[in-house]
Amino acid sequence: MIFSLHPRLQQDTFKITDLTLSQLLLMNNRNFPWLILVPQKPEIRELTDLEPKDRLILMEEICLVSEKMQAFFKPDKINVASLGNLVPQLHIHVVARYQHDAAWPGPVWGATCVECQEKAAKEILGKLITVFKADSL
Amino acid sequence: MIFSLHPRLQQDTFKITDLTLSQLLLMNNRNFPWLILVPQKPEIRELTDLEPKDRLILMEEICLVSEKMQAFFKPDKINVASLGNLVPQLHIHVVARYQHDAAWPGPVWGATCVECQEKAAKEILGKLITVFKADSL
Repeated sequence: MIFSLHPRLQQDTFKITDLTLSQLLLMNNRNFPWLILVPQKPEIRELTDLEPKDRLILMEEICLVSEKMQAFFKPDKINVASLGNLVPQLHIHVVARYQHDAAWPGPVWGATCVECQEKAAKEILGKLITVFKADSL
Repeated sequence: MIFSLHPRLQQDTFKITDLTLSQLLLMNNRNFPWLILVPQKPEIRELTDLEPKDRLILMEEICLVSEKMQAFFKPDKINVASLGNLVPQLHIHVVARYQHDAAWPGPVWGATCVECQEKAAKEILGKLITVFKADSL
């Protein structure tokens, strides 16, 4: 089996970069700075489906992404989650949250998605690609 | 600084056991089998506030708890999340989800909380204490 990104994730995101284990994606939702990590291993649904060494790499990648988002977006809180009730491929949400955002203090899942305008998406994507350049673990 | 459990977590949960790093708690909500890990370190809000070695222990504990819940509750999916928009002390939700549960496919946060009756809570708590006995990492 070869890894391939789930079509729903492909449709809803823009790619930022590859880290050691995971693809790093930007969710196409202008309400929230919302990144997604997808470990590039086939047939993985749960964290526990990963080999133990990959679970630890994933934790390091979650923390790397959180730290970059804290520095870049200056949020009030980082939300991290692995849900997968709709898209079965293991993917980790890392979302920068603000007390004034569209869903606070609730979770972002289920909140209305407002897609980025193409120009705004390209602008933020370009900045994030720079932020993560040369920072794969 | 000494670790002490946030009053809101104390009020909403029952204690199952101590693992190496975290307290393991059962959420008092009979809609979902819902466990919570709280790393026993003072003044921690984000995953990135933990020391790197504790982040890895936490990932191992999340996976241990997930595996025990998979074996015991036979869910369709495990949801894992660190949110903390309301309770600032770092705590990790590990929730066993079913396609027929009260919030599927949405997240459990924000869904109505139906507290366990005392007898039911004690019964499930007793079973979970046995499941996790002698399984600290």
